Amino acid sequence: MRMITELSKSKTSLIRSLSVKKYRQENNLFVAEGYKIISEILNSDYKIKYLIYNETKEIPSASGDFEIIITDESGMKKISNLKTTPGVLAVVEIPIQSIQIQSLKDNLTMVVEDIQDPGNLGTLLRICDWFGIENLICSHHSADVYNPKVIQASMGAFLRINVQYTDLPNFILEYKETTGHSCFGTFLEGENIYTSNLPQSGLFILGNEGNGISVEVEALVDKKIHIPSFSAGEIHAESLNISVAAAIVASEFRRR
Amino acid sequence: MRMITELSKSKTSLIRSLSVKKYRQENNLFVAEGYKIISEILNSDYKIKYLIYNETKEIPSASGDFEIIITDESGMKKISNLKTTPGVLAVVEIPIQSIQIQSLKDNLTMVVEDIQDPGNLGTLLRICDWFGIENLICSHHSADVYNPKVIQASMGAFLRINVQYTDLPNFILEYKETTGHSCFGTFLEGENIYTSNLPQSGLFILGNEGNGISVEVEALVDKKIHIPSFSAGEIHAESLNISVAAAIVASEFRRR
Repeated sequence: MRMITELSKSKTSLIRSLSVKKYRQENNLFVAEGYKIISEILNSDYKIKYLIYNETKEIPSASGDFEIIITDESGMKKISNLKTTPGVLAVVEIPIQSIQIQSLKDNLTMVVEDIQDPGNLGTLLRICDWFGIENLICSHHSADVYNPKVIQASMGAFLRINVQYTDLPNFILEYKETTGHSCFGTFLEGENIYTSNLPQSGLFILGNEGNGISVEVEALVDKKIHIPSFSAGEIHAESLNISVAAAIVASEFRRR
Repeated sequence: MRMITELSKSKTSLIRSLSVKKYRQENNLFVAEGYKIISEILNSDYKIKYLIYNETKEIPSASGDFEIIITDESGMKKISNLKTTPGVLAVVEIPIQSIQIQSLKDNLTMVVEDIQDPGNLGTLLRICDWFGIENLICSHHSADVYNPKVIQASMGAFLRINVQYTDLPNFILEYKETTGHSCFGTFLEGENIYTSNLPQSGLFILGNEGNGISVEVEALVDKKIHIPSFSAGEIHAESLNISVAAAIVASEFRRR
């Protein structure tokens, strides 16, 4: 049975708190906004807890075991993370995701070390989704996939990609032993990616926006690859944006 | 002679107004922030009008025909467009840029139609810089290159790329007639970019974030190209982020 209630003060503060990782983890909940992304969630295995609508908007015939909450524009503004509130917000349960290393065999896997910007992480999820990379492994100090900015930037891709946070050096060691695949790292120097021999399966690592890949992880990389610059000038961009680099690397692995 | 003055109320409001395109155009000025980007400007042909420092920071030995203004943290906060003020801000003259179509011959040129997001435009400038694309042509309704968000996201690349705003259909017609090169457009369908025959010179168009390339411009495209998805699932990302798409297209043109 669908319950239709009003937005209480306690729910308002619960939802607002979910912009902070600590409270997402404590409550095991995250927030997604907008009709498109929520209709994708409704069609997925993710479980919605609350579906909150602006009273002036039409309520779609969403069915499921969740509470529907109706509020006004000012109520929406209090809970929305967006400049322009799209008029619908879902509070969703964080699912248990665990990646078995064995399942990464014969697959291409993306790894990020300490990626900071949530927008970048969201874009990486879209890139994974586009290039058929089903698993994204993140170091513990990476941005949180359930950060509202990641969810919005991923445009629903977070629903289709398995994301796991782990200790990278241990993971890479176990990955190489279990799958027998190689570990590639993107650096500012190394083999030219365009002429490099890239396999269909393996793992490729992208480093932190400012510092790149750590020395500890670098030691576990089997092949360093880099995207050459074609600039004629001596002075040019020192690096590419991380999601731009990820896109080119994924594209190069896949086109062969 | 270097003048060192304080930050007056009128300069504060002038600088604040430069976050709006209308006032940038009226005053022919734009704003850049941060040591790295400003040192690149100092080494370029761009002319700085005011260089504003937080009094607690060290003033580098910048020389040139500009006014140095010293202020405190609260003064910096009033004029800064960034969450964390880096402590140095430059007010820079907008140069006159005009691109002669003849100069685009034997070159690869990027064109954007109605790109909206300043962060995306900044990332496109970085991509041009990396891939040796010297000229970026924008439709009149595209984000403004002197928007502070573009300047910051471009990480200095705006200094090395010629950007021109123009009426796209007229430009494309004249471009094709003058250079004899082809016009490529990125679409969600068309020739697979990985197997497409791409020349070293030509023009490629990226459409608006939501609507893609307009019908009017599409009619002038000689070859439609698309980046195929490698996702195994039926449901996957509907599109790639515009800067991700631009990076892959630039990469494919250049690697051959």
